[in-house]
Formats: sequence, C-alpha cells, structure tokens
Amino acid sequence: MLRLTLDMDDVLADTHEKLINIVLNDFNTTLTLKQLQSSALRDLLHPKQLTKIHRIINEPGFFADIPVKDDAIETVYELSKYYEIFVATACMEFPNSFRDKFDWLKKHFNFIPWTNIVFCGYKSIINSDYLIDDHVRNLAAFKGEGILFTAPHNLRETSFKRVSSWKEVSELFLHRS
Amino acid sequence: MLRLTLDMDDVLADTHEKLINIVLNDFNTTLTLKQLQSSALRDLLHPKQLTKIHRIINEPGFFADIPVKDDAIETVYELSKYYEIFVATACMEFPNSFRDKFDWLKKHFNFIPWTNIVFCGYKSIINSDYLIDDHVRNLAAFKGEGILFTAPHNLRETSFKRVSSWKEVSELFLHRS
Repeated sequence: MLRLTLDMDDVLADTHEKLINIVLNDFNTTLTLKQLQSSALRDLLHPKQLTKIHRIINEPGFFADIPVKDDAIETVYELSKYYEIFVATACMEFPNSFRDKFDWLKKHFNFIPWTNIVFCGYKSIINSDYLIDDHVRNLAAFKGEGILFTAPHNLRETSFKRVSSWKEVSELFLHRS
Repeated sequence: MLRLTLDMDDVLADTHEKLINIVLNDFNTTLTLKQLQSSALRDLLHPKQLTKIHRIINEPGFFADIPVKDDAIETVYELSKYYEIFVATACMEFPNSFRDKFDWLKKHFNFIPWTNIVFCGYKSIINSDYLIDDHVRNLAAFKGEGILFTAPHNLRETSFKRVSSWKEVSELFLHRS
C-alpha cells in the first residue's frame, strides 16, 4: 500500500480562513476579504500586526475550532481504503498548539490512528510516497512526490503539481486509472 | 552529511530510572532495584499497578525532570558536528507529554533546533540513515540502519547491533575509521 502524507494547516484545516476572520473582525484594517484571500498575511500585515497574529496563534485553544476544509473528511476517508494515510504537521513554532492539533485530528479524522500522526519541523524527515502540502519549502525538502495544495501564499508557484480542493485530490488519487 | 535520528525515552532520557524510583518509593511492592533494572515494568507489575504507572506518566510535568543519560549531552554535541541530528519521540499515547518533552529537549539539548524534533507514533515514517532506539518494534519498522540502545526490556534481543551507553555510541559513530 502506498503511503500518502497530508499536511494539516491549509490542507486539512482552513487555518487561513480563521486568520482572515480575526483580521477582518478584530484588527484595525482597510484590507478586504479579497485581498486577504489572495496573498500571504506576511505580505499584507504590518510588523506589529504580524506579531499580534503570532501571539494569537500561540494561545492555547487557537487550533481547537479551526474549520475543516470542504470535502476533506469524506475524501481522506475514501483515500484511507487505498493508501496508508499519515498526517504531518508542524507545531514546534507554536508549542501550545500540540494538544489542540492532536485533539482536532481526533475529533474530525478519528479514523486516522494516533500512530500515523507526526509533528515535525523539517518535512525532509518524512518517509512517504506522496506529500500534499501548501508550502513549497516542505515539498522541496521532501524525498517523495510532492503535491501543492492551493493557498493564498502559493498562488504563483509553478514548480509542483497543484490541487485546489479535496475534490481535485480525489480526482488525482482515486480516479486515475 | 548523514542523518542520525535519536529516540528520547531510555536513549537520551533515563525515563526508566524515574519510573523505578516511583515504584520503589511510592508503590507497595517487594520488587528490588535489581529486578526493576532487569525486566520491563509490564512484566513485573500487576495490572492495577500498570494502570497507575500509565496515569502517572500522563500527568503534566512527568517528563519535565527526567534525568539525562550519562554522557548523552557531550556525545550528541560531538555527533552534531559530523551528522545531521534529529530526535524522534513518541508522545501521542500520552498527549500531555508534548510540551514537557519539547521543553526538556530545549533545556538539555538546546543545540538541536526545533526543526529537527519529531513527535511520531510509527517510526517507519522516519527518513534517516541511522536510528538509535530502545524498542525493537521501532527499529524493525525503520528503513535505515537501526541500532538498539540497551534497556531493561530489550536485554535478550539479538536482532540489531547494540550499544549500552553513550560512550559506546561515541565509539561507534565517532571513532570508527
């Protein structure tokens, strides 16, 4: 069985959507929803706002209520019949997120056993046939076949095969002959 | 640079020693230090005592004050000049241990960057040239060269190259020609 490893933030979880809502509702900003959906926050926010965002992300509970990406649960469940599914997510930068992320995965993807969850920094450590991730730096460090999941900060990247939704992941991994 | 991945419990950290002290001091037992140093706790303790040990391990703070194995810090520091060092440790079974383990590594091995710390269940996910671990199941799942670090629960294992101290790790990785 081939192994398929999935990133969590902005792949399984709509982390960017939660951040956009925080910026629109709680920040003093003239940025529009459209702008926030088309660029990385680090290119849109002022340094002080970025520091504030980092503080918010590191608060216990931040990751607890992030929405699941559309069709992710159904598609990963289907994929788990044909692939060995792992989740690989970073959280060392935000050490308070460990428990929240672990509980989030258990809540929404309880068919993925805890043995197949990996918290890591560099994804070069991942031994897998495929990795779906929204960061080119992770895909570049990865030894298997990397697939880029579309996110506001990677819209102009062209160096990896791209999927823009879980429906497209399903097409790529379940319906190819 | 070859990559060398190190397990934490009973390799970098003397987790078993802390557990032995808890059993000798806080449990109603006739077990001797010698017995506790020669077998796995799961083979020595009653089911109720094992449940109690599991509860203790999962208490926040349990991993915070575990002693470092003799010579581990100096040897890993030397190794880090010639090998790319990663630490791979399990903690999903004890979800309260994430933060303690992360802080423990930062305190004692602060020369290992957070990018090189991995929390995982199955070590088959680790992409590394070498893995030093005290569990045969981890070495068996690992794709590179596995080295068994001696611990009470693996004294009779013969299927992997064995080291019994950090001095022996140093001999094996730093002094071989």
